[in-house]
Amino acid sequence: MGGERSTTARLQGDLPVRSAADVAADVEDDATLLVSGFGSVGYPKAVPLALADSGRDLALTVVSGGSVGEEIDVALVEADAIARRFPYQARPPARAAVNDGRIAFHDRDVSTLGDEVQFGGLTGEGERVAVVEALAVGADWLIPSTSIGQTPAFVESADRLVVEVNETVPTELAAFHDVYRPGTPPNRDPIPLTDPGGRIGGERVTFDPEKLDAVVETDRRDQPYSFRDPTDDDRTIAANLREFVEREVERSPLFEESLRIQFGVGSLGNALMGALGDTDLGDRDLIYFGEVIQDGLLDLLDEGELTAASATSLALSTEGQDRLFENAERYAEDVVLRPADLSNSGALIDRFGVVAVNSALELDLFGHVNSTHVDGTRAMNGVGGSGDFNRHSPLAVVALPSTAAGGDISRIVPMVPHVDHTEHDVDVVVTEQGVADLRGNAPRETARALVEECAHPDYRDDLTDYLNRGRSRGGHIPHDIETALDWHADRD
Amino acid sequence: MGGERSTTARLQGDLPVRSAADVAADVEDDATLLVSGFGSVGYPKAVPLALADSGRDLALTVVSGGSVGEEIDVALVEADAIARRFPYQARPPARAAVNDGRIAFHDRDVSTLGDEVQFGGLTGEGERVAVVEALAVGADWLIPSTSIGQTPAFVESADRLVVEVNETVPTELAAFHDVYRPGTPPNRDPIPLTDPGGRIGGERVTFDPEKLDAVVETDRRDQPYSFRDPTDDDRTIAANLREFVEREVERSPLFEESLRIQFGVGSLGNALMGALGDTDLGDRDLIYFGEVIQDGLLDLLDEGELTAASATSLALSTEGQDRLFENAERYAEDVVLRPADLSNSGALIDRFGVVAVNSALELDLFGHVNSTHVDGTRAMNGVGGSGDFNRHSPLAVVALPSTAAGGDISRIVPMVPHVDHTEHDVDVVVTEQGVADLRGNAPRETARALVEECAHPDYRDDLTDYLNRGRSRGGHIPHDIETALDWHADRD
Repeated sequence: MGGERSTTARLQGDLPVRSAADVAADVEDDATLLVSGFGSVGYPKAVPLALADSGRDLALTVVSGGSVGEEIDVALVEADAIARRFPYQARPPARAAVNDGRIAFHDRDVSTLGDEVQFGGLTGEGERVAVVEALAVGADWLIPSTSIGQTPAFVESADRLVVEVNETVPTELAAFHDVYRPGTPPNRDPIPLTDPGGRIGGERVTFDPEKLDAVVETDRRDQPYSFRDPTDDDRTIAANLREFVEREVERSPLFEESLRIQFGVGSLGNALMGALGDTDLGDRDLIYFGEVIQDGLLDLLDEGELTAASATSLALSTEGQDRLFENAERYAEDVVLRPADLSNSGALIDRFGVVAVNSALELDLFGHVNSTHVDGTRAMNGVGGSGDFNRHSPLAVVALPSTAAGGDISRIVPMVPHVDHTEHDVDVVVTEQGVADLRGNAPRETARALVEECAHPDYRDDLTDYLNRGRSRGGHIPHDIETALDWHADRD
Repeated sequence: MGGERSTTARLQGDLPVRSAADVAADVEDDATLLVSGFGSVGYPKAVPLALADSGRDLALTVVSGGSVGEEIDVALVEADAIARRFPYQARPPARAAVNDGRIAFHDRDVSTLGDEVQFGGLTGEGERVAVVEALAVGADWLIPSTSIGQTPAFVESADRLVVEVNETVPTELAAFHDVYRPGTPPNRDPIPLTDPGGRIGGERVTFDPEKLDAVVETDRRDQPYSFRDPTDDDRTIAANLREFVEREVERSPLFEESLRIQFGVGSLGNALMGALGDTDLGDRDLIYFGEVIQDGLLDLLDEGELTAASATSLALSTEGQDRLFENAERYAEDVVLRPADLSNSGALIDRFGVVAVNSALELDLFGHVNSTHVDGTRAMNGVGGSGDFNRHSPLAVVALPSTAAGGDISRIVPMVPHVDHTEHDVDVVVTEQGVADLRGNAPRETARALVEECAHPDYRDDLTDYLNRGRSRGGHIPHDIETALDWHADRD
């Protein structure tokens, strides 16, 4: 496929080219598949589909850097081929299987996943096969496609390696990649990146040539996210955030030269990215340092508003991918893709003072955030990178609508029934109602600020009633434990 | 005091020596005091006592790096002089004032406190006065005493500086200190420390000489922790931990050369430190990389079992301090004290692959940990550094007895009513009953492991009943929300 010239460029040297079905037949029943992919792009497609079609009785462990497409989290799930899944899934069939216990799942922070696979217990007893998508491959190297994610760590950890070369990905995307490996503790090096948009590595992931078991050619495109159009609430949240950011950059010496900012994955994050262009930052540079490039950033790049953008994934819609692919060389001047353990590195988020803006399912009156489990029980997608950014940012902003389900549910509740981010990691909350700056607040002050500034007016009285009950009980965090979870119990 | 020779060594140059009462009189009613101290040592004593004795109507904000002594958290509290307190307190009067709302309090992670003071909102509207203890001072430098904590960051953030020079601290302690400042985001440097016991700074904290407002001489000693003797449970937990560690160092390539380990502050941590000498590590080096040096480490140092020990505080008992003070030069060969933002740096904990061993009040069946709030409401001390180590360690161990209150309360509960560390950050749990390795577990597996391996037999049936109720409801985390907090509600 693709003609001789393209094949020459993408497959360099004497490589073990095989069919996906042939490769799938060699995968042991209880293998751990370490798959590339992040932000629903750059994941392998042909081998997972061949495994799903094999009719075999598989019990695979599947580990991905982040979100992947339906070839894995739909087809393999529907074939009942996945026994264990880490650390993120975002497709309804995978979610259903996780929630009814058919798939054993545990979500983990993005930044440390590579190490956990390498040193911890996140894989099964069977063989470890890295199956990664690339835009080109040689005897001891590959160039990732539309995301890097945990590919370098996975390739390093695997017993053997299968590379899917995707001819639909322009080879020009190589110019986006900056692959750097920091070494292994206790001899891990300080990451020498001193500029959020800087480069310290190369375009290639290298490996021991003995590991390369198969190269599979494919022309199947990513099945990426589709974003909904911004809602009225999204726009009001964006306006509230903009006003807050404009005040904060004037106030804090952290932002004398520039604003470094991250937005979480999703439609709200995409809308907030898009609205960033309207923010008055004076003559400060604007730099994006996050985990995904979403469509909202492309306009900013086109308009020259962004000095640099750093991420681990081009998590664009299909239209966004087309737009980027057609102008890959130009975008590569400003955009750099890194391994996920660098894009989400706590050391780098801290070093660059990145403002973190992430959404959530709900948060409680004392600043604890639930990002993953509806009513404390039903898994949504996974914690993703929100923990990395919330923890290490000097200014962690949680942005969310004050209600869900058309107003029937308040997203500000007495107590969240699942905590992904604690009160220690949340600085500011923004809803369509307003902004609550929680820094330096005692819990009682936090509760008052959230009720008055962020909660929907329809729920303020009930939240205040709860607080009054708690206050009559006393304690630093004035919960009324007997009724703390009533709002969730009622919904069961 | 102390004679001419000592005064010459400790006070160098023409310094503004004043009495504590005189200095206290200049402190504004609503000032923010940024006080030195960590692990209940190295905090200022004379000026806080003078403020407490002033009879003035004060509303101070007091920020410390960690735990400080009774001169602050008893005397100033009883004088009703503290309006706000960050981020840790460990004395009953301070705790009582926090819990009844007289003092506004919020605990924060150790690693980021310096930045929060410098860039965030953790201080009040009034002047910022750094009041720090030193063993020697000059016109533009000081040498910290028995802890470093956040002194460098506080001195940098303060409007003016008061130095208490304590003549009871041997000047030989200067040899312990390695003061390094990483600069300010976005121009913060990668921390160039490549060896847990290495040195990258000097003994002095330097400052703008214009800031030095007063030097106060004192001879009041630290009022440090006293540790209880190890209990039977402590010894069994230590034995269980030892067996686990011996297996793990053989299994994981992380520990081929050495074991780097941290223990939390407290009597259990002290007992576990002391028991570490019995662990069979083969020919591996043993290195301590934590936040405090407790008495348990002195024996290991004496016996040559430790290659290096790195911390921010000499949090010893009075007897331990005497022992260290008498042999300061010898101990300084192996012990290095760093600023708290380095001792607790996520980047360094990750880089060195430090095994973290921290205690907790309780944890729940799905691995969430409560370290700070009894029954979700009443504050104990603060989260301290446990979050830094649990989050960034490749192997985070929670070690605690399975019960409290003489067996009347299970420390393993259906749902914790306050979360300081989430399921994403806890790898292994050790009680006197056994060890549960949670890595790679789905929540249901985690619950079963905790019930079978770690819970006290008296509570296993009740915990299993809870799990069965939850499982009948379904969901990834099978909570029974209606009864999840009953174990805490009953205790109110």
